[in-house]
Amino acid sequence: MKPRQTKSKLRVIPLGGLGEIGKNMTVFEYDEDIVIIDCGLAFPGDEMLGIDLVIPDVTYLMKNLEKIKGIVITHGHEDHIGGLPYILRDINVPVYGTRLTMGLVENKLREHNLMNTTTRHPVSQGDTIKLGNSFKVEFITSNHSIADSVMLSIWTPVGTIVHTGDFKIDYTPIQGAPVDLHRLAELGKKGVLALMADSTNSERPGYTQSERMVGSTLTSIFTTYKDKRIMVATFASNVDRVQQIINAAAEANRKVSVMGRSMVSVVKIASELGYLDIPKNTLIDVNELKRYTDEQVVIIMTGSQGEPMAALSRMSKSEHKQVEIKPGDVVILSATPIPGNEKTVSTVINDLAQKGAVVIKDDTHVSGHAAQEELKLIHTLIKPKYFIPVHGEYRHLQKHAELAVSMGMPKENITIMSIGDVLELGRNACKIVGTVPSGQVLVDGLGVGDVGNIVLRDRKHLSQDGLLIAVMTLDGAGQAVAGPDIISRGFVYVREAEDLMDQARSIVRKALDRCERESITDWMQIKTIVKDDLRDFVWQKTKRSPMVLPIIMEI
Amino acid sequence: MKPRQTKSKLRVIPLGGLGEIGKNMTVFEYDEDIVIIDCGLAFPGDEMLGIDLVIPDVTYLMKNLEKIKGIVITHGHEDHIGGLPYILRDINVPVYGTRLTMGLVENKLREHNLMNTTTRHPVSQGDTIKLGNSFKVEFITSNHSIADSVMLSIWTPVGTIVHTGDFKIDYTPIQGAPVDLHRLAELGKKGVLALMADSTNSERPGYTQSERMVGSTLTSIFTTYKDKRIMVATFASNVDRVQQIINAAAEANRKVSVMGRSMVSVVKIASELGYLDIPKNTLIDVNELKRYTDEQVVIIMTGSQGEPMAALSRMSKSEHKQVEIKPGDVVILSATPIPGNEKTVSTVINDLAQKGAVVIKDDTHVSGHAAQEELKLIHTLIKPKYFIPVHGEYRHLQKHAELAVSMGMPKENITIMSIGDVLELGRNACKIVGTVPSGQVLVDGLGVGDVGNIVLRDRKHLSQDGLLIAVMTLDGAGQAVAGPDIISRGFVYVREAEDLMDQARSIVRKALDRCERESITDWMQIKTIVKDDLRDFVWQKTKRSPMVLPIIMEI
Repeated sequence: MKPRQTKSKLRVIPLGGLGEIGKNMTVFEYDEDIVIIDCGLAFPGDEMLGIDLVIPDVTYLMKNLEKIKGIVITHGHEDHIGGLPYILRDINVPVYGTRLTMGLVENKLREHNLMNTTTRHPVSQGDTIKLGNSFKVEFITSNHSIADSVMLSIWTPVGTIVHTGDFKIDYTPIQGAPVDLHRLAELGKKGVLALMADSTNSERPGYTQSERMVGSTLTSIFTTYKDKRIMVATFASNVDRVQQIINAAAEANRKVSVMGRSMVSVVKIASELGYLDIPKNTLIDVNELKRYTDEQVVIIMTGSQGEPMAALSRMSKSEHKQVEIKPGDVVILSATPIPGNEKTVSTVINDLAQKGAVVIKDDTHVSGHAAQEELKLIHTLIKPKYFIPVHGEYRHLQKHAELAVSMGMPKENITIMSIGDVLELGRNACKIVGTVPSGQVLVDGLGVGDVGNIVLRDRKHLSQDGLLIAVMTLDGAGQAVAGPDIISRGFVYVREAEDLMDQARSIVRKALDRCERESITDWMQIKTIVKDDLRDFVWQKTKRSPMVLPIIMEI
Repeated sequence: MKPRQTKSKLRVIPLGGLGEIGKNMTVFEYDEDIVIIDCGLAFPGDEMLGIDLVIPDVTYLMKNLEKIKGIVITHGHEDHIGGLPYILRDINVPVYGTRLTMGLVENKLREHNLMNTTTRHPVSQGDTIKLGNSFKVEFITSNHSIADSVMLSIWTPVGTIVHTGDFKIDYTPIQGAPVDLHRLAELGKKGVLALMADSTNSERPGYTQSERMVGSTLTSIFTTYKDKRIMVATFASNVDRVQQIINAAAEANRKVSVMGRSMVSVVKIASELGYLDIPKNTLIDVNELKRYTDEQVVIIMTGSQGEPMAALSRMSKSEHKQVEIKPGDVVILSATPIPGNEKTVSTVINDLAQKGAVVIKDDTHVSGHAAQEELKLIHTLIKPKYFIPVHGEYRHLQKHAELAVSMGMPKENITIMSIGDVLELGRNACKIVGTVPSGQVLVDGLGVGDVGNIVLRDRKHLSQDGLLIAVMTLDGAGQAVAGPDIISRGFVYVREAEDLMDQARSIVRKALDRCERESITDWMQIKTIVKDDLRDFVWQKTKRSPMVLPIIMEI
């Protein structure tokens, strides 16, 4: 809709993202309308011990429930759809996305029994939808490491915002068309108030290669190793990659077996929806594998990140039920390690190599994110008045901002946001005006948000030096009638430290005696004395600080 | 010594290394003589929760104490000298190494009060020493990311073994001479039985750049940012790097302040021994910093790996006492992240960028290890009969083996070893004949080897879902006279889960009742029942598996 005279401002609030600002979830608010862009999850950092996944804190949305008109999804990756099953429970609004994206969303909803309660609106690239009185959202054909991804043009009363989502420019995509540069040019010509663009690869000079490049590498590997069994590990969601593996297999007259839960389900969804073109009689069940010789099969599977429970990892440790790696097998890692996964991937490679497999990992992957020259093209086409770098760690956003400055954008028209910041956009204004509650909600098992900093601090403490429990039963007069007993876990190998445990017990006994002598009867005080004495003793003897837990029972 | 007629075989046993085979420690044994090459430590893997460092299991050496003639050190890095303070306590034999290496060793011995009890023999590059009746060891000038490093020529009755240690070929080293290629050529001409060579960079094509390259980058950064405060983080042990930073600083008329405990001590040792040439009045104390303006100072410090306690990390979090990062500061990371450290380094970069510092990390580091073309040169000069790739993960050793095969070495003359393997070398034989006890000894605080798999498993368990304790006092008849009480740590935020705790208590009570009804009085059995019931209940309610610890006291 055309900018109209108004004093209201558009508010943009990134609510999700762990380290990466503006990832997972961004909120657009104008007057009585809120639109949510993406609803993803983040994978826990190393310090989030025991946590399964992390979703955005939506306290702010919960307070503005009646305003929310819908959730618009840019593409079907976990970090953009994975929060839906958790958020939809409380914020039941319609979900909009392209067909493949919606297919993957529905798969999730089904798992969480949310299909019947969730309104879903599949759209096509090129469609425009109206959300409330304030927003129209156009879905613009884009390229990324998953098919059917879109950029968004968000039409608001103060002007148009272009949000690139995750993107690259692929002039020769495997499926669908290249990014709709014509449309972006048109929008730029009409005038774009602000650009929010993917910064993941802003430190990389040049261009990101076309997905098609991987196809040629695969074909050449399939030729070189034409008499070997070939296995390829990649991201389940990279449908185009899977397509290219299937193409290379079909060309080489090989059957394809798909392994790993997420790989199987994505292949099923994508082929049902027509995003995967699998020649007849190509797919075989894992149980049929044994009916074919090595040179007749290709296995496509999960585990390219060294995930311990994924197919590849289990094979590398001889823990996979159906497939045993043998000398001469060719394993292609069609993915680069996500930062943080380098070591686990390296371990898998070592294990595979030790079993005699040939591991190939060069030129078998391309990024799904735009490098500097692509970013420059987008900035040039869109010609935004304001620029907000998103989707990246701070250093990436900063680099992206520098890139914009180098292209002539005034520094003061660029805003680097933090999660929870409220950016107010007017026709001649773009500034952070405040913050809303935001942060990370930790999901652990069935618990959503019941694990916080105290629990994590305790897990960290327990993980470092374990636990020492001093337990005793006291009578009303403070006399020990049972114990003290010392129990430890994760502290020291007890059989070799019986002496230490005996001494610890006597330290506790002495502490109790002292309390009695000094007529200390308050249990909290007794506990503190026992704890301090025990901690000092253990530190002096071992230079370790296990968690010390005094337990007093009363009879 | 010349090969003599003998039926004895040379035995080579890699005893140290965590993932990297033949790192940390290698044992050479012939008849009644044992020589140990290097005595290093490894840094614990992510799964070794709470562990400080890892040293080799020397059970085999302890059983052959009288044979051991000495420990020969190739260079002064932690993974080659860091095990000495622990091993020397039990295996008190002379230590041999070049002057800088010995300076760093002595620093360690001093810290551990081992100076008076340890015999030290400083040697020079080019020296040859005799060890027992069977061995002579020649120290050959080499290049690495620390000065005064050596390759070893080990002369044995069955022939000569060349062990490269960690090395690269630097034709223009900062300090000392290039690898003694003439000597290697001579040895190769005389005949070398076996080559053991560094495989760290065997996957890298081409050449590793000269250390001198970093100098030009530094000079150009110092010119570009001539009015800014400059800070450089690098490895303390890289004396040549520190020299180049000092050179660049001196050229720019800047004073140098050194921060970080290990950096301060290495700079002291290296300059005392003449391995660092620091112009007069260049070094200033950290307390003098405030007397100079930004463009007058350079800070050299530790923390290039994002180590949380190191100077750089603390500055990035505003936790450093003397230095506060401010906008415009230039921080040079003169190191690449060691695999596994990528994420922590990235966090430090983000934090620094957020404080407005310019972070520079490109072309500011070169590797200390030989790439493929350098390895080929060594193979060509040495012309060994047998080849044993060492110093690398399995995939690196395998790649190095392939490289040797591509140069014409027969596959059967190459042996990839595992830790603890015993390789027997004769004039016409090179094969693994058995194994000796080997592995990793974990050091945690003062404890050496008292943390094993059970303790680590418990720490892992505790770190994932925390702990649930059910404690009760029973009388002789099995009647609960106090409790059951439920105590949890690291499991769930208790204030929000009081209900859950109440239910857990009643589950335990019911379990006790059941035991009474069924006349179960064996405490182990009661504990098992309580544990199982509680675990099932918690899993069903939360899908979590905390460690469940039933404690029964008797009065």
